[in-house]
Amino acid sequence: VYVIADTSCGPGDAERFGEILLRFARASRSEPGCLDYGVFRSVEQPERYLSVEKYADSPAFEAHRDSPHFRDIGMAELLPLATARDVRVFTDPKTVPPRS
Amino acid sequence: VYVIADTSCGPGDAERFGEILLRFARASRSEPGCLDYGVFRSVEQPERYLSVEKYADSPAFEAHRDSPHFRDIGMAELLPLATARDVRVFTDPKTVPPRS
Repeated sequence: VYVIADTSCGPGDAERFGEILLRFARASRSEPGCLDYGVFRSVEQPERYLSVEKYADSPAFEAHRDSPHFRDIGMAELLPLATARDVRVFTDPKTVPPRS
Repeated sequence: VYVIADTSCGPGDAERFGEILLRFARASRSEPGCLDYGVFRSVEQPERYLSVEKYADSPAFEAHRDSPHFRDIGMAELLPLATARDVRVFTDPKTVPPRS
């Protein structure tokens, strides 16, 4: 299960938002079912962040959403700073071979 | 069709890579079938970039890979700077409703 969470915050909150998001990423990486949690920032819109997450399966993603850090950091600290949020879940990634 | 292209370059090339990637993004956005092309940079690994792309359909993605800028910027300028590259294509995104 791949998850792309696209979140924007107010311009004045961008640095602080990134710091909280990194803390959330570290906590999420400690979940047994979380295989990867990368934090990326838009080059053109510095108040926009992308979390790129990989979970072992759907129950592992549910466990992430039921975790204490999801509640205490995600819901309590990040969500109030978010001005826009779009979360997409993908389950059928295909690797594209390079052009030769 | 959603595409996530994860590319790393050498530490000394990171700023230049980002500039070329933005130029490539602008050219790609001019394709009729390219609906979105975002450029993101890892907060923890500044030499790692993510392109988050959306195409109208598979032929539109093929048109991207057959475009002059794919050859002249992607293959000729970006690829030689890339130290690692992983491109994944997703076709079944589901939007996750927010937790209440």
